[in-house]
Amino acid sequence: MNENESQYRFDLLQKRWVIIAGGRGKRPDDFTSRKEPTPENGFCPFCPGGEGKTPREIAAVREKGSSADGPGWKIRVVANKFPALRIEGEANREADGIYDRMNGIGAHEVFIESPRHDSTIAERTVEDVAQLLQVFRGRLQDLMNDTRLKYILVFKNHGAAAGATLAHPHSQLIATTVTPRTIALELNACREHHMVKERCLICDIIKHEISERDRLIGVDERFVAFCPYASRFPFEAFIAPRFHQHDFALATDGDLRGLAASLREVLARLKRGLDDPPYNFVLHTAPNARVEPKRAHQWETLAQDFHWHMEILPRLTRVAGFEWGSGFYINPTEPEEAARFLRSV
Amino acid sequence: MNENESQYRFDLLQKRWVIIAGGRGKRPDDFTSRKEPTPENGFCPFCPGGEGKTPREIAAVREKGSSADGPGWKIRVVANKFPALRIEGEANREADGIYDRMNGIGAHEVFIESPRHDSTIAERTVEDVAQLLQVFRGRLQDLMNDTRLKYILVFKNHGAAAGATLAHPHSQLIATTVTPRTIALELNACREHHMVKERCLICDIIKHEISERDRLIGVDERFVAFCPYASRFPFEAFIAPRFHQHDFALATDGDLRGLAASLREVLARLKRGLDDPPYNFVLHTAPNARVEPKRAHQWETLAQDFHWHMEILPRLTRVAGFEWGSGFYINPTEPEEAARFLRSV
Repeated sequence: MNENESQYRFDLLQKRWVIIAGGRGKRPDDFTSRKEPTPENGFCPFCPGGEGKTPREIAAVREKGSSADGPGWKIRVVANKFPALRIEGEANREADGIYDRMNGIGAHEVFIESPRHDSTIAERTVEDVAQLLQVFRGRLQDLMNDTRLKYILVFKNHGAAAGATLAHPHSQLIATTVTPRTIALELNACREHHMVKERCLICDIIKHEISERDRLIGVDERFVAFCPYASRFPFEAFIAPRFHQHDFALATDGDLRGLAASLREVLARLKRGLDDPPYNFVLHTAPNARVEPKRAHQWETLAQDFHWHMEILPRLTRVAGFEWGSGFYINPTEPEEAARFLRSV
Repeated sequence: MNENESQYRFDLLQKRWVIIAGGRGKRPDDFTSRKEPTPENGFCPFCPGGEGKTPREIAAVREKGSSADGPGWKIRVVANKFPALRIEGEANREADGIYDRMNGIGAHEVFIESPRHDSTIAERTVEDVAQLLQVFRGRLQDLMNDTRLKYILVFKNHGAAAGATLAHPHSQLIATTVTPRTIALELNACREHHMVKERCLICDIIKHEISERDRLIGVDERFVAFCPYASRFPFEAFIAPRFHQHDFALATDGDLRGLAASLREVLARLKRGLDDPPYNFVLHTAPNARVEPKRAHQWETLAQDFHWHMEILPRLTRVAGFEWGSGFYINPTEPEEAARFLRSV
């Protein structure tokens, strides 16, 4: 693609066009850091000693003999102090004039990733990251027992520009009584592909990316990381297992160790190459398989056509009126160039 | 809704759930201004005298006898200097391995709204705003002659946090060779409603909001402004004609004067009540009716079921991992409270 050219590219999973705008010429060096300090007020409720200032512990990785909500932890999971959704009650779906509403039932939890205030995933060991991923898996498995919850989304906001309000490294999950639209679109795309071809769409994408190589960030025997063909954001990355697995809750410890190595590597390259940029990551996995079939939408019964993956979204550009108004994205960095850069740092 | 409750609400146009999270308790006073200064480097290419620094004038409102690209203008339209899309060439749709791409054909224009560097729409006269809307309409009518262009989106980024890179008041348009997904979803929702009920969905929403009153910002004989039931953002506003009209290009000067009064009023209330917040606005209108039928998707032939409107999106909260990962939005301010506040200031 020439310097001054733009291209529309189609996102097979989201069925959406993206504009790759070469004419806006953003090379890695052109990104003035959008880092803003996350506000710090001297006291951090996520540091050891602050256990009493958080809601009660839901799960933890702890030293033997240590007690919940006390010291001696390595990873803590607590309810969000300002939850967007609450676990108690019934959905109570009802009409509201011409509209529809239901109660804000769900779960909103926080993963405090480490006792250390300044140790991000990029700097942890693979074993530490694998342990965090095991805690994600454990919470997914546990929440799936609640058949009111159709979907559980694990995500992370790193840096103020990516929405983090506390600097201490943490991730979150939100469980909802409906399948989110983004997930439903991906499930539908996977299902349609499977109906026609009897193959997994994401398996096909992975094989194509590994053989094409120009958007690859890294690949090993079990995992692959690449910049998606129709990346919405500069340096966007997609990490997935090379073997077909629809539900993250089914991943073995060995699988999670493989993901940990790949995730840590991509985040370390982003940090090194782009001066610790703000980013979000999200885990896309199949909807809750235990939801009773009578309540399940069609895509939920066919969740096995899905293929779990992580999307890493650096927040180097601003999303503005055109994006909000159209659902289209303008990405000033070619994914091929982003991948070349991330391979080189 | 109680202070600590949350609610899921369904967006009839986007067919998407939104979480109204009362528990996060954002009242108008809680929004610390997200204002950031738009970078100023002393020279503004949009001020009078800078005409030679912009691409050539495409259209303008000018004093009689003044010449293009010289002084004497009131509104100027120029090509974007760093366009996301270009007008020359053919789409050349082609496969790229398992993917699809096409050339970045389209238009990207800038409306310089006034010679004054510091005069926003909120402070202009209704006549001035109506004149700007007439220029929008003129560009839409002109670009619709180009049947490569399926859709033309007019939008505005106000303030750095909303994506503005120049402080001088300006709006933009981007014309694309595909119908954007957000528009396609609204068109489909309107078409489905019309197939079942033989009524316009947006006409129904407008009538409901006017009779309910609790989300109204203002209403007169011809236009209505309200906070949508499933607002994604705090203080989001929706402005539409009360009469059915699918295509903004068909609006009369009288119609545009009515829209100007409503738009100016809403923006002035936002500015007064929320300390000049960053915002985006977008104009949603029917796709290009002149696209040859053989090329048109089904929704484009049924564009008359649509109903043009403006969406105003204040940017007071940050969009983070959950929103990017799910397509769900969490809005900490009830639309009823937002409307009450906007009526009162």
